[in-house]
Formats: sequence, structure tokens, C-alpha cells
Amino acid sequence: MPISRAHAEALDAADPLARWRDEFVVSDPQLVYLDGNSLGMTPKRTVERLRRVLLDEWAGELIAGWEHWLQLPSRVGDLLAPLIGAHRGEVVVHDSTTVNLYQLVHAGLALRPGRRTVLVADDEFPTDRYVVAGIAQGTGHRVADLSEGLHDDVALVVRSLVDYRTAELADLGGFTAAARDAGAVVVWDLSHAVGSVEVDLHAAGAELAVGCSYKYLNGGPGAPAWSYVAAHLQPTLTQPMWGWFAQQEQFEMERPFTPHPDIRRLLLGTPAILSLAGAEEGIALTAEVGMAAIADKGRRVTGLLLDLCDELGLATSTPRDPARRGAHVAVVHPEAGELVRRLATERRIVADYRPPNVVRLGCSALTTRYVDVWDAAQAIAELTAS
Amino acid sequence: MPISRAHAEALDAADPLARWRDEFVVSDPQLVYLDGNSLGMTPKRTVERLRRVLLDEWAGELIAGWEHWLQLPSRVGDLLAPLIGAHRGEVVVHDSTTVNLYQLVHAGLALRPGRRTVLVADDEFPTDRYVVAGIAQGTGHRVADLSEGLHDDVALVVRSLVDYRTAELADLGGFTAAARDAGAVVVWDLSHAVGSVEVDLHAAGAELAVGCSYKYLNGGPGAPAWSYVAAHLQPTLTQPMWGWFAQQEQFEMERPFTPHPDIRRLLLGTPAILSLAGAEEGIALTAEVGMAAIADKGRRVTGLLLDLCDELGLATSTPRDPARRGAHVAVVHPEAGELVRRLATERRIVADYRPPNVVRLGCSALTTRYVDVWDAAQAIAELTAS
Repeated sequence: MPISRAHAEALDAADPLARWRDEFVVSDPQLVYLDGNSLGMTPKRTVERLRRVLLDEWAGELIAGWEHWLQLPSRVGDLLAPLIGAHRGEVVVHDSTTVNLYQLVHAGLALRPGRRTVLVADDEFPTDRYVVAGIAQGTGHRVADLSEGLHDDVALVVRSLVDYRTAELADLGGFTAAARDAGAVVVWDLSHAVGSVEVDLHAAGAELAVGCSYKYLNGGPGAPAWSYVAAHLQPTLTQPMWGWFAQQEQFEMERPFTPHPDIRRLLLGTPAILSLAGAEEGIALTAEVGMAAIADKGRRVTGLLLDLCDELGLATSTPRDPARRGAHVAVVHPEAGELVRRLATERRIVADYRPPNVVRLGCSALTTRYVDVWDAAQAIAELTAS
Repeated sequence: MPISRAHAEALDAADPLARWRDEFVVSDPQLVYLDGNSLGMTPKRTVERLRRVLLDEWAGELIAGWEHWLQLPSRVGDLLAPLIGAHRGEVVVHDSTTVNLYQLVHAGLALRPGRRTVLVADDEFPTDRYVVAGIAQGTGHRVADLSEGLHDDVALVVRSLVDYRTAELADLGGFTAAARDAGAVVVWDLSHAVGSVEVDLHAAGAELAVGCSYKYLNGGPGAPAWSYVAAHLQPTLTQPMWGWFAQQEQFEMERPFTPHPDIRRLLLGTPAILSLAGAEEGIALTAEVGMAAIADKGRRVTGLLLDLCDELGLATSTPRDPARRGAHVAVVHPEAGELVRRLATERRIVADYRPPNVVRLGCSALTTRYVDVWDAAQAIAELTAS
């Protein structure tokens, strides 16, 4: 018997997370938004928070606002840490995934001075590939596809935990251990994992990671990214971009560069407070719900969507094993770009086109309903049948 | 005859820029705020703009907001360009002064491959010194104090146009020409100049510059910085940090890194839209008033303050020649730190302490009144007399 819309409605009615959608600004109740993995929706509390930051803090405290703004990168990092299995003091929120990855790739390479190869998948997210290529051009490292495998010349691997196209979840613990055994360092990119799946960096022995806060964490457009460095590496970590927010006794102006012995040594220039406040609200909301419940719903919603794909004959490259996928589903179709355009204009369904052939459907646990994916699957089937 | 408060009041009454103070949120009318050169005040229009960005754009347009947000770094750059004598397409607003300086120092060094010396003043603003030192540690360049002077091994000079302590204005045209004659490149840091003095980068032949937007431009705490690259250098400019926002056909995911042939090649990761919108409002306000009027008032207010310093016997390191200074005044006192603390707690006057001995008084043309500097000078004289 086909999966009915009534079945999806029943799942929504029984969904323990359903009420969290009320925490978000829903401008258009008719819109089916399946792109929260590109840009998460707007928490109502963020609107209120920004009003306070603008009026009470910036206008009200003026320069004295820095007495607490200075703590924001670490404070928000500590709020994020439990969501990824990191400890207090191991995460700092700052700059962008690109900049933070640049720092950690350099930091990782400095840990393996004798080795000359960096592995990154040829189909890795572009900025990850670009950052590695840019560094390698300067240092003379050799960049190879991940398929080359670990060997004794591999200094470092850059790898996404959740593939931005297929949603395939890498084996965090297994790959980190294999890399360690081969003498290599891994910089994990958690952009599509953080806030969608349970991650335990410590249990996995992961030492370096970055990720963004504007996808499943609902931090806002271009909200700052974050860096994770395992505590034991922090005191001696080096990277080439030295900024005054990394400096001990920052406001003593006459000193040579002596960075904090802790995670703050990755800080650079003055943090973008308005955007950072948005990140804090989104992260706090996620922490309040808890990653176990969020990941569970993600598996269920994507599971329903995959079942619908099977039923409707839609091809997908997303793993069927719920333990091996993140919270989006890739429908593969040769006319994916046109399909995404028609979904938006003809059906008011927002999906994401990822060249060359992926319709990407993001299932954000806090805002996506079971009926949303039911409607999307039906619409795709109808549009591709015609 | 001593300069009376009535004289200062008369100057305010005749001030053609006085009405612009109404464009700002004034939370405490009793507060004398002389730190707009650390953090400019809050434009009312920014509060309204952020409300629109949050509700109409982020919540209302969701991912489609990127259709216009993608243009923001260039659009805000073009708005800023005339304030510094740059042309359209020569300025982009992004990241932080630290990050942007890192890029441009690398870019400048790549233009002078045979030379091994970088000049930066020993008392230059810390992040400028740190960025140079961090790069030099990796590349093997030799870092020397600016006093060493230009010679045929100097590849690059990093120099502030307005000294963050004394407010001394460097000779932009003269030094740029001397550097060019000596075969060196200059990266100008305009953080304390932009929005306070008239700058004509083109007339000066300047090729590379950075600056912030949260001081005299009133962009908000940690609002993004900007980069300027003269048009002729853009197509071949290189720097080691490669990000996906620099990429041509950014959303074609399979390409090798091929950056835009224009100023956008400096872009890195996803721009922080909330903070960038704040920068746009502050820059637009400044552009509306015009730099000639702003610089004129800056010279007049600092001129009054310097006259008061002379009258009251307060030592200052700020140049008396109005053509040779920015828009702040440095009062030099051995107990400067304690003095700044007492000004705030006992007199409700916000100044800035810059170690070891500077009380820095910022005169933002759009928000500082002549009576503010009169009150501050009297208060300093009274506190130092007791």
C-alpha cells in the first residue's frame, strides 16, 4: 500500500520535536522549505537577541560592550562543544569555515613536517579543495585524491564527515584511527554534520575539526564558523596567520606575538559580534533540544523520504542505512537543475541543486515536517513523470 | 582669555554637521563619548536595517536571500570606494583587518620575489606587526623597523596612515612615491583614517590598502573590514588563502580554483551578512554626509581640543598642524590608565587608554560635539590637578 499523506500527518502529530517549529519565524506557511542545510531558518529568539545587541549592548554600553563581547567566541564555543563530543575549552567560534580550515590545515601540516602528501577527495566540497590546493602551492605539498588511501607519506587528510551531496556519513572513529596508525592527521569538516547527527569527537580520537553554524545550527546567513582542537594539541599548535585576538594580554600593545596557550590562539581580528550573537542563539536552541532527539528525527524524516523515493521510483545516492547518513537526501536526476527551479516556481518547494545531477532535500529536525518530505517526493515524481 | 564652554556651545550651534547626531541612538544623553574611534555609535538606520535583514530577508526569502547577499561585499565596497579615492571595483568588504592584511601582505610579497625585507614600525598597531611576523616566520623574510628606511632589499612596507596613538597622518603620496622609487610595495592600513580624513588613494598612487568599518564608519562591533587593490594589479594578484567566494562560477562544484579576475578574488568563505549589513548602513551614512565636511569638522574639533590642552597645560603627542593629523587627540600622562578609569566613573566621559601613557580622545564628526571635548579637557585638567 502506498505511503499516504495521512501517514505523514500522523507522524507529525506524534513528533516530539514538532513544537520546536514554533520557535522559528515562519513567513510563508505554504512554503515547503527543504534547504535548511544550506541556510537554516530564523529563530524568533535571534530576532529578539539582535534587538538587544543593537540597542542594549552596542548603543547602550558602547565600548564597554567589549567586556563581555570578548568572551563570545569562547562562550559560544563552549555551548557548541557538547553537540560534537568536545570538551569545554576545545571549541572557538570565529571567522569562516574557509579561514578556519586554512589555519588547521597549516597547523596539521606543522605536526607532520617530514611528510609531503595531503589527501582530499576530488569531489570534496569546493572550499575544502581550494584551501588545500592554495596551501600546497605555497608549501610544495602534493595533493592526491582520497582514493589513493593512507600511506607513509600522507601528512594530512581533509575530509567531510557528511558528504554534501550524498549525505553519506564517514566512519569518524575508524578513519581517524586508521589515519593515526598511518601517522597522518585528519582535519574533519563537520559543516553538514553539526546539528544534524550525533558526533563524538573525543570518542573517535579526532584532533582537529571545523564546521559552520548557518546550516542545521540556524545561526543566520554567514554566521561565523568554529574550530575544534583537542586539548592536548593546543599549547603548541602553530599556524601562520597571527592576529591580535590570539594574543595574551591583548591590550598591552608593546609585546611580541605570544598567543594564548589555549584554543583562543586561533582567534584573528575583531569578531563580527552581530553575526556571532546569531550563532549563539541558534546553537543554544540546538543544545536545548539535544542532539540525540535531533539525530533521531533526522533519521526518521530522511527514512520516510527514502521510502517514498523507492515507492515513486526516484533514484537516490543517499545511504539506506540510517547509521550511515546525515540529514539530507540526494535525489539524482539528469535534469536536477531544472527540477529544482520548477519545484520552487510551480510547487513552492525549496530544494537545492548541486551540479551535476543532484536535487538535495535537507531535513532540519527542528523545522522540517514529515508532510514536507511527502509533498516534495510527490511533486518530484509528478514533475519528472510529465 | 580662557576658552569658555559658551564658546564651545556656540561652535556646536553653528556646526553644519550637528544634525547628524540625531541619526544615532543616544542611550544616555549625559554620557560624553570620545571613543567612536574604537567603536562608532549606533546609527538608527542600522537598527531598522537589521530588523529588515532578519525578518524580510533571512526569514522572508530564506535561501533566495543569497541572490542579493552575494553582491553585498562588492556593493558595500563600491559605496566605500569614493570615501578613500578608490574607483568602483577596487574595494571589497569582507572578513577582518587581520585576515585582509594577511592576504595583501602575501600578495605584495609575491610582487617582489627577489627582496627579503619587510618594514613595519616597532610601535605599529599590534595586529599589523603580528601579521607581518607570522608571515615572515614562514617565508624567511626579514622584518625591520620602519626607521631603517627604504632600500633595495625592501619588498614591502606595512604602514598605518593615521597613527593609532598620536593621530599623526603619514604622507600618503610622498611615502608611496618613495617606496615605488625604491622598488617596494606599500600596504596601507587605513583603520584610523577611513571616515575621518580625506584620502585619495589614486592620487597617491597607492596600490594596496586595508581598513576596518567599526570605528569612524560606525559599522557596528566587529563589522567586516575591507580590502583595496588598484585595478591594474587585480587580474594577476595572488595570495595563499583560496576560498569558494573567490571562485568564478562559484556554484559549479567540480572546477579547479579559478578566481575572479577582479577584486572578488580576495573573498574567502561565506560573508557574515548581519554584520555586513551593519557596515553598509554606517558607510552609506558617511557617504551621504561626505568626507570633505567630515574631515573639516574633525580638524576643527581636534583643533579646539588641542587649544584646550595648551591652555590647561596638558601634554599631547598629536600634531598641531591640522593637515598632519587624524580625528583623535592623544593626551600624554604617566597615569593615563587610572585617568581613563576616573573619567568614566567620576565624570561619565568615555576615553580610551592606550599603554603606556596615552589618554586617547576620539572626535567622530557625526557624533562628537565641541562641548564634549571642552568637558573632557576640563575634567582631565581637574583630575590631574588633584
